Amino acid sequence: MSELETRNTDTGSCEETSCFDTCNASVGPRGTMELLSQEEVSRLNGAQDGELYELFRRCALAVLNCDDSIDEASVIFDRYPHFNIEIRQRARGVKLVLSNAPGCAFVDGQILDGVRDHLFAVLRDIVFVSSEYYEQAIRRQQTTDPEDERAVSNLVFNILRNAGLLLPRVLPSLVVCWGGHSINRDEYQYCKDVGYQLGLRGHDICTGCGPGAMKGPMKGATIGHAKQRNMRGRYIGLTEPAIVAAESPNPIVNSLVIMPDIEKRLEAFVRLGHGIIVFPGGVGTLEEILFLLGTLMDEANAEICLPVVFTASASSRAYFDAVDQFLVSTLGEQVRRYYEIIVDDPVTVARVMREGMARVGANRRESRDAYYYNWSLRIPAEMKRTFDVSHESMAGLDLNREQAVAQLAVNLRRAFSGIVAGNVKEPAMKLIRAHGPFRLQGEPEILRAMDGLLRSFVTEGRMKLGGKPYNPCYELVS
Amino acid sequence: MSELETRNTDTGSCEETSCFDTCNASVGPRGTMELLSQEEVSRLNGAQDGELYELFRRCALAVLNCDDSIDEASVIFDRYPHFNIEIRQRARGVKLVLSNAPGCAFVDGQILDGVRDHLFAVLRDIVFVSSEYYEQAIRRQQTTDPEDERAVSNLVFNILRNAGLLLPRVLPSLVVCWGGHSINRDEYQYCKDVGYQLGLRGHDICTGCGPGAMKGPMKGATIGHAKQRNMRGRYIGLTEPAIVAAESPNPIVNSLVIMPDIEKRLEAFVRLGHGIIVFPGGVGTLEEILFLLGTLMDEANAEICLPVVFTASASSRAYFDAVDQFLVSTLGEQVRRYYEIIVDDPVTVARVMREGMARVGANRRESRDAYYYNWSLRIPAEMKRTFDVSHESMAGLDLNREQAVAQLAVNLRRAFSGIVAGNVKEPAMKLIRAHGPFRLQGEPEILRAMDGLLRSFVTEGRMKLGGKPYNPCYELVS
Amino acid sequence: MSELETRNTDTGSCEETSCFDTCNASVGPRGTMELLSQEEVSRLNGAQDGELYELFRRCALAVLNCDDSIDEASVIFDRYPHFNIEIRQRARGVKLVLSNAPGCAFVDGQILDGVRDHLFAVLRDIVFVSSEYYEQAIRRQQTTDPEDERAVSNLVFNILRNAGLLLPRVLPSLVVCWGGHSINRDEYQYCKDVGYQLGLRGHDICTGCGPGAMKGPMKGATIGHAKQRNMRGRYIGLTEPAIVAAESPNPIVNSLVIMPDIEKRLEAFVRLGHGIIVFPGGVGTLEEILFLLGTLMDEANAEICLPVVFTASASSRAYFDAVDQFLVSTLGEQVRRYYEIIVDDPVTVARVMREGMARVGANRRESRDAYYYNWSLRIPAEMKRTFDVSHESMAGLDLNREQAVAQLAVNLRRAFSGIVAGNVKEPAMKLIRAHGPFRLQGEPEILRAMDGLLRSFVTEGRMKLGGKPYNPCYELVS
Amino acid sequence: MSELETRNTDTGSCEETSCFDTCNASVGPRGTMELLSQEEVSRLNGAQDGELYELFRRCALAVLNCDDSIDEASVIFDRYPHFNIEIRQRARGVKLVLSNAPGCAFVDGQILDGVRDHLFAVLRDIVFVSSEYYEQAIRRQQTTDPEDERAVSNLVFNILRNAGLLLPRVLPSLVVCWGGHSINRDEYQYCKDVGYQLGLRGHDICTGCGPGAMKGPMKGATIGHAKQRNMRGRYIGLTEPAIVAAESPNPIVNSLVIMPDIEKRLEAFVRLGHGIIVFPGGVGTLEEILFLLGTLMDEANAEICLPVVFTASASSRAYFDAVDQFLVSTLGEQVRRYYEIIVDDPVTVARVMREGMARVGANRRESRDAYYYNWSLRIPAEMKRTFDVSHESMAGLDLNREQAVAQLAVNLRRAFSGIVAGNVKEPAMKLIRAHGPFRLQGEPEILRAMDGLLRSFVTEGRMKLGGKPYNPCYELVS
Repeated sequence: MSELETRNTDTGSCEETSCFDTCNASVGPRGTMELLSQEEVSRLNGAQDGELYELFRRCALAVLNCDDSIDEASVIFDRYPHFNIEIRQRARGVKLVLSNAPGCAFVDGQILDGVRDHLFAVLRDIVFVSSEYYEQAIRRQQTTDPEDERAVSNLVFNILRNAGLLLPRVLPSLVVCWGGHSINRDEYQYCKDVGYQLGLRGHDICTGCGPGAMKGPMKGATIGHAKQRNMRGRYIGLTEPAIVAAESPNPIVNSLVIMPDIEKRLEAFVRLGHGIIVFPGGVGTLEEILFLLGTLMDEANAEICLPVVFTASASSRAYFDAVDQFLVSTLGEQVRRYYEIIVDDPVTVARVMREGMARVGANRRESRDAYYYNWSLRIPAEMKRTFDVSHESMAGLDLNREQAVAQLAVNLRRAFSGIVAGNVKEPAMKLIRAHGPFRLQGEPEILRAMDGLLRSFVTEGRMKLGGKPYNPCYELVS
Repeated sequence: MSELETRNTDTGSCEETSCFDTCNASVGPRGTMELLSQEEVSRLNGAQDGELYELFRRCALAVLNCDDSIDEASVIFDRYPHFNIEIRQRARGVKLVLSNAPGCAFVDGQILDGVRDHLFAVLRDIVFVSSEYYEQAIRRQQTTDPEDERAVSNLVFNILRNAGLLLPRVLPSLVVCWGGHSINRDEYQYCKDVGYQLGLRGHDICTGCGPGAMKGPMKGATIGHAKQRNMRGRYIGLTEPAIVAAESPNPIVNSLVIMPDIEKRLEAFVRLGHGIIVFPGGVGTLEEILFLLGTLMDEANAEICLPVVFTASASSRAYFDAVDQFLVSTLGEQVRRYYEIIVDDPVTVARVMREGMARVGANRRESRDAYYYNWSLRIPAEMKRTFDVSHESMAGLDLNREQAVAQLAVNLRRAFSGIVAGNVKEPAMKLIRAHGPFRLQGEPEILRAMDGLLRSFVTEGRMKLGGKPYNPCYELVS
Repeated sequence: MSELETRNTDTGSCEETSCFDTCNASVGPRGTMELLSQEEVSRLNGAQDGELYELFRRCALAVLNCDDSIDEASVIFDRYPHFNIEIRQRARGVKLVLSNAPGCAFVDGQILDGVRDHLFAVLRDIVFVSSEYYEQAIRRQQTTDPEDERAVSNLVFNILRNAGLLLPRVLPSLVVCWGGHSINRDEYQYCKDVGYQLGLRGHDICTGCGPGAMKGPMKGATIGHAKQRNMRGRYIGLTEPAIVAAESPNPIVNSLVIMPDIEKRLEAFVRLGHGIIVFPGGVGTLEEILFLLGTLMDEANAEICLPVVFTASASSRAYFDAVDQFLVSTLGEQVRRYYEIIVDDPVTVARVMREGMARVGANRRESRDAYYYNWSLRIPAEMKRTFDVSHESMAGLDLNREQAVAQLAVNLRRAFSGIVAGNVKEPAMKLIRAHGPFRLQGEPEILRAMDGLLRSFVTEGRMKLGGKPYNPCYELVS
Repeated sequence: MSELETRNTDTGSCEETSCFDTCNASVGPRGTMELLSQEEVSRLNGAQDGELYELFRRCALAVLNCDDSIDEASVIFDRYPHFNIEIRQRARGVKLVLSNAPGCAFVDGQILDGVRDHLFAVLRDIVFVSSEYYEQAIRRQQTTDPEDERAVSNLVFNILRNAGLLLPRVLPSLVVCWGGHSINRDEYQYCKDVGYQLGLRGHDICTGCGPGAMKGPMKGATIGHAKQRNMRGRYIGLTEPAIVAAESPNPIVNSLVIMPDIEKRLEAFVRLGHGIIVFPGGVGTLEEILFLLGTLMDEANAEICLPVVFTASASSRAYFDAVDQFLVSTLGEQVRRYYEIIVDDPVTVARVMREGMARVGANRRESRDAYYYNWSLRIPAEMKRTFDVSHESMAGLDLNREQAVAQLAVNLRRAFSGIVAGNVKEPAMKLIRAHGPFRLQGEPEILRAMDGLLRSFVTEGRMKLGGKPYNPCYELVS
């Protein structure tokens, strides 16, 4: 192999490097993954396909806006109306040409390498999910033909493989951490303490890649990894187009993947993770919990080993009491078999994970399943199917216990998913603005349980960032 | 990232390790590329799709038969009738389970790592070209709709990218070497000498990955690279299913790619190479030369920079005199603008390449084309279209100068391609056995020129390995 | 090269892993540097040489006590009276066998890799300075024979080279940061902010490796490096046996060197650093400043380029006003040519360093001096000679302006050095306890200036950690 | 860490690049080991110390003369009388400035990287053995005080450690290959075949680094390593100043060490090697065999495990019959316990080594000895002491069986050592030219055995390269 050219041929200029300033720059990738064909370049640059380009532009803007803590996507988009991005073919590969980009992503006119990586991760994933291959697979997925269902069972795998996320021959070590973006200082410190203990023990971290409980464990783990001189710590962030702007990936994330929608993102979490820790959070966290438990309770998963811990600091111990109660009253007593609650003890949480990983490893070897992807886990078809949030679909959810527990879990998951969308995802927020809150109907006991939980979320400020009073996007109609 | 498991969990047993012995073994990959989805595993293992599995089995057998110099595929297949290969999913990724495999690929019951890599390269490429994506693309390619033509223009790129062959940010250094598998000792030594001088100057080598002129330059280059302590030398072998068994990849090849057919293989050569050296060879070499010159002479390529050298040792100087004469008498005097003939001077050949590379680099930067893939080169549509060799298609070739030079080049390329197929590719050999030699028709001058050249190939033993008298698979009918 | 054995064959057991617990463990090195000869092993293990072993034991204990913030060495030594360390030869190299070691260095019975590295750094440096080579060189250094002086001029270089600290072919990037271990929260945050800006710009950091201003810039830089995905950031800590226990190396330090005494430590700082930033500090910081300025003012150094910045947050701006005034009133107005004062502006500090580095690089190339070691800098002989602190030597210092400025700088440096020793180094503290404070004599103006400065240090709490009232170890006698 | 500068800043010019041409060039190192202090630079450059500089110049010339097969040092030195080398300090470290250097070390004006490494290895080792440390150690070694003997027991270790040759945590894999520089084509091919089988099994190779049996096994191993994609194969060459010019290091050697004299070189071989293979050779090979067997027969080494194989192709089987007979008739029947003779079977030789290594590993773990250096082996003091070859010392050797076998082995070793010196080492050759052949005296049986062996060496052309008739440098006087 001949000599490499010296790496950095980026060019750029900024007026000032604080936020609100903007920069123009031409930016190349660091790695080798971003080799695009001419067809791929023209697909994204193509003026004809305004929608795809706009998706790309918005995600790019979101990752460039790296230091900001605004969580309303529209504010960000309004602040940089002239932001533009273009892909150009050069001798050494593609370059991204940015105009009027947020200044906070730059140091002395040079883009931060962490942001550079996020930018090319966005490019990679959008190219992938805009490919003909993906479109077909997704079209088949919307049918209910079981053969089609099998045919698309590899979709999430393919996205993750394409992102270079799957490492063979690495023993189980990945802890998925869920929890709220909007948590208090004490809860944040607790997340960091748990992450620190995980990092000391060599665990990698995967989160939804936003702030709060999605950032704390990563931050703690970096310190643990540093003390162990572990340079290869992985901080995986799984996001989705509808969420990335509201929860701009935190800069620690060194493997960013844009999953196409919430269902595939949830599938990715549970197939990648070798253990799952849940911190206090809001409706999004409940959606995650319901997806996970609804899946684990499926009898096809009787042999699956996946350690799940709910944990909070002493001052937030009430949170999981409430969640536990809600789960028992909706899904029944047996749901408790699938998680363990640990209060105020980061070392024990980390040790439970470490021991769980050993069991996961043995389990995978026995079942001949891959360390890096939990093929054996059966995710119910209805959990995987995209749920289109609308007033109709929300009103149509059947929330009562006169159905199989698995089906109730599916419907509850969708209910919380719809509330998340109404809170932070543009399309659903638009519907709410036009037609008022979603209406959820069902058995009074279920609705009461939901109502109690949701009210406590509002009281404790778990519903939204920004400090504004929360205006509910739903009504419970018994 | 957690600890790696210790690498080698292969198991195996052999009776003896010389050839003709057979081994059973379970073999894992070394790298990270061979992550297969369940759907991919079942596609290849699937009993239902006998044809695909048989293709995989044959290619695998060919690369396992690594020390053999037999060049008749059927002999190899007959020698290991009970050879079997199966893909299995394991905790650390896929494993290949081999039964009754050629013993020469093993040392004390362990597979050679070089052969292991070749085996997984075969797996990777067959998975890729058996994918739905590929099948569709290829179906569209067979139409003559120009939009389809553009749509499939990225096919070769996609195969090479998927094989990890494209390295951005590396300055031009790749020399493609063409020439015969069946060359004499003096010619082989000359190929090595040229390769040595190329290696001393940091060039990587790409060939058709068989013996003779496909091995010599690589062998020489390894010594040059070693003296320069260059551990990253690339020895790229581009082969195709129909050829791999007859020309089993030489063990130096450290990047093996199975292209689906000869046309894509030729396209890969000219888009990857930053310079091309042709050594004496037979009909296959002529096919390559005609593909190259027919392409370079296309006026759309007026600005393309691609150094081409024909070179031979002093004792074989007559060879290129004959080729030169044939080219001039068929394609006209202007063809000489595209190549340089150098006799018996490895240092000069290497210097011409080195200087050419610098010009290629400048040319790519100016034209904003990638170093690692020559997008700008326009390959005529008819050169790219698959030529189905049959008695009819061969008889239908129009070999006279009453047409555009470009078109004549296309037809001559096809004529030589058909003769190669009749010589070494199973399907065409079968046709010949059933229906006698192909008949080629055309202008007497052209046929005379071809006849002279072909006769000299026979006389000089360039037509086939193995020492048997050559029985022509064609007749020239003027 | 044959296979590596799997790395971790350490064994260990702890009762509990919080502080005050103790662990027993057998610990191997991570790198390749710690290859000891039998003679070296027996030299350190040797019961006969009680002093050397005790030195090793104390330094080892200090680095093991990694989470502690006690800054009185004797307290630490008293807490772990049964701590023991022994070197053993094993098939894979030496191992350190620890008994009753501080539990805070361990996670689940395994030593932290960062502490492991520090432990082997201690071993490496003590082996080196206990070698016959070093002893001779040091003996010759104590003479005043100029040839001997030249002969030992390479001592500091040899220690640093042996520690693997000198990297050729790396462009100037190393910023030395000086300042107090005992600084307020605001000052600490400012150190971190400056470090962050330096890290964003790719600078490596070198400090005295204790807490406060020695930790803040490193901590900030780690975040800057992480955002730039810079995995090779260097955090160099230079300490000395007399100081290591009081200022246990902070865990970020990834290159620890134990220099034999303060003079060699100061020499190492100014020959390694490509730029120097001084934050507010106490007497130790003044000693450093006087060493630096006394050296730079030497006319032999007229051509030397070394950017020096004094910087503090807005709330501490008075600090450098006072230092500046003291310097001008003792060394004269021209001293200001050698430093720049920047208040409350981390970005400007970092930019000044970045631009300075470019000039340093050009300067080294012109003067044919090494990037990695400033050979050209002439350090006055008396600055380099070990100053044995005692009541006599302190009383004998000539502190008046009736001498060359260079000589006054030497004497002032020694005066502050003596006060540092009286404050925190065991041997001098013992002298103080036995004979009362050191007495410093000199010109009233000088003493007045010193007095003002020292009083302000006391008032501002810069004299010692721990919050106890400061009991001065000196008297000024005009 | 800041950016690296682009590596190659060498400058150079040559007239022509074939041999006999000369080049001027300024050459920097590739690695990080060659950091010299000012004192070291001036020591080697110093005009005052003509002898040291001349040693450096001669060794440098020898390694530059890399393609030559002349084995008479004086011829090489005469051919490049104006060759000059100088060390210069530069910003990025030292550079070697070469004038009138042999052109064969250059490609297009750039030095070969392999030769560059050899050149800096020479520099490193000559700096080391010219250091004060080394001189003292050596002075003490010449006394017979047992404490001194212990004190210097680490000398060889220190040289090898300084050369970066000792790798901890690597399992035993190093095979030392001995044998003649002057062997026939068949013997050379056999050495290659053995090396190939060793390489396939992951063994590293260590030889005296000249041609013939010192090159063949390395060449074979490179092919074996390449087929196993083993990029980290080690090819260690141990030479000495007196021999380097006559046996210029072959270019495969990637770890070159210049040991100060033959005794330390022999010690290095037997302490580094995990197994030893002897191919046919001449007097040098006999010297090696006697050193090895005299050591292994020492009863202090009863527990040492070190597999030794004598091996030759079928056509040379008589060679080891003769050696075996000589050994038995001088050292007694029990000598056979220490070696195994294998004829014409490379696979078995390699398997014996592989199995031996496993035993060596177990042996080292049990005895707590290092894998990378056989400390436990006791080498008799008289084997280690430098033997100054002269007419007196040779005449004084006691060659009869009326002494302990160990002592006879020492004296026989010295006798052969003296003959090697008389054949190829300049100082001894000078003595021979001045005073005629050395005279060896002793018991007739011993002399007869020696005479038979030596005559056969002459007959078989094993005494010298170059094809000139051999003129014995010794007389046997019974």
